[in-house]
Amino acid sequence: MGVPEPTIRRMPTYLNLLKELLEMEESNVSAPQIARRLNLDPTQVVKDLSYAGASGRPRIGYAVGDLLTSLKNFMGYNRQREAFLVGAGSLGQALIQYDGFVEHSMRIVAAFDINKEKIGTEMNGVPIFSMDKYRDLADRLHIPIGIITTPASVAQEIADMMVCWGIKAIWNFAPVALRLPEGVILQDTHIYANLAVILNKLMDVEKQTTEIVNQQ
Amino acid sequence: MGVPEPTIRRMPTYLNLLKELLEMEESNVSAPQIARRLNLDPTQVVKDLSYAGASGRPRIGYAVGDLLTSLKNFMGYNRQREAFLVGAGSLGQALIQYDGFVEHSMRIVAAFDINKEKIGTEMNGVPIFSMDKYRDLADRLHIPIGIITTPASVAQEIADMMVCWGIKAIWNFAPVALRLPEGVILQDTHIYANLAVILNKLMDVEKQTTEIVNQQ
Repeated sequence: MGVPEPTIRRMPTYLNLLKELLEMEESNVSAPQIARRLNLDPTQVVKDLSYAGASGRPRIGYAVGDLLTSLKNFMGYNRQREAFLVGAGSLGQALIQYDGFVEHSMRIVAAFDINKEKIGTEMNGVPIFSMDKYRDLADRLHIPIGIITTPASVAQEIADMMVCWGIKAIWNFAPVALRLPEGVILQDTHIYANLAVILNKLMDVEKQTTEIVNQQ
Repeated sequence: MGVPEPTIRRMPTYLNLLKELLEMEESNVSAPQIARRLNLDPTQVVKDLSYAGASGRPRIGYAVGDLLTSLKNFMGYNRQREAFLVGAGSLGQALIQYDGFVEHSMRIVAAFDINKEKIGTEMNGVPIFSMDKYRDLADRLHIPIGIITTPASVAQEIADMMVCWGIKAIWNFAPVALRLPEGVILQDTHIYANLAVILNKLMDVEKQTTEIVNQQ
């Protein structure tokens, strides 16, 4: 509480670096070293890490193992969270097959879809159920996180259903702005929006190049 | 040029909705209808679509097919862009296997990795090369987009190499802040950062719940 969101967003960056340092059997690391590796400001690094209760020692810096433990505790990464995923289309499948989430303390335990060919199958150990099994499973399992990878047109309906059956946080990948009751956590990851910005800027760059060529 | 980034970011949302409407054989759609479906403000919708040169008719709205064409032209989606991906680990593989990019005009044509077991194989039709093939292929193919899905510690080095061999835009999924020369387009998608915010907020909610229970 009271920790700025940009600090929270940088925490996985520190965690990844510390894991790498541990693998390379580095025992100590200083804030300026961390800052250099991650292209951050050293003062910012010290401040971020202090939120997790970590403080470095002069000339020595932080003990890598201890710092990793502090950050994991601070972020709640020592306890795995479970998630339901709705929409086992191409993005949903990519997320189901992605093993990186488990390392970052989240596990997709079940997926839901309306496609009869997918229902009853398993992917990367994750069973795919029909939507009408959602209520019963939600009732029994008390899963805190709901991941939405459906088409945009049904995402709000799915979100409403998730909220109704007790979800605490929604991670939305559908390209739509969801409306949720106060108290439900919402994070959007709009991959297509990022791609759209890239494609649009590429077009601008090419237009400028063409204009320069035409002027010559 | 001169189009606000939030408008660009909403364009894929409109495109997706219009494709769905076309599939349902709807011929017309009004700005308020679009706004309602996407949880947006109708005035915003009219403004966004006007950037793409589209204007609705009173009482009738927009012709779905024409609007879709206008948006595709505006976004440059009628021309496919090619991308190199560096880092065929678990996130890289998920992106390679994800078919949604092709629909949004980007195609991953080759992937690069240092893992000898992956080099020489193919995934979803995408060949995986060793890093030392990068320069030669970049020289021959003039690929505009570079996707980085490497560990954070090598991402800057990979970005520098991509820039050196002519990449115009970098889409960075590695949890690190990249430094690029002016003129190179950069978009970050920090999936772990989104997840970290969710996990952290979940922890806060639980702390509050415990405090309330303890007070009773």
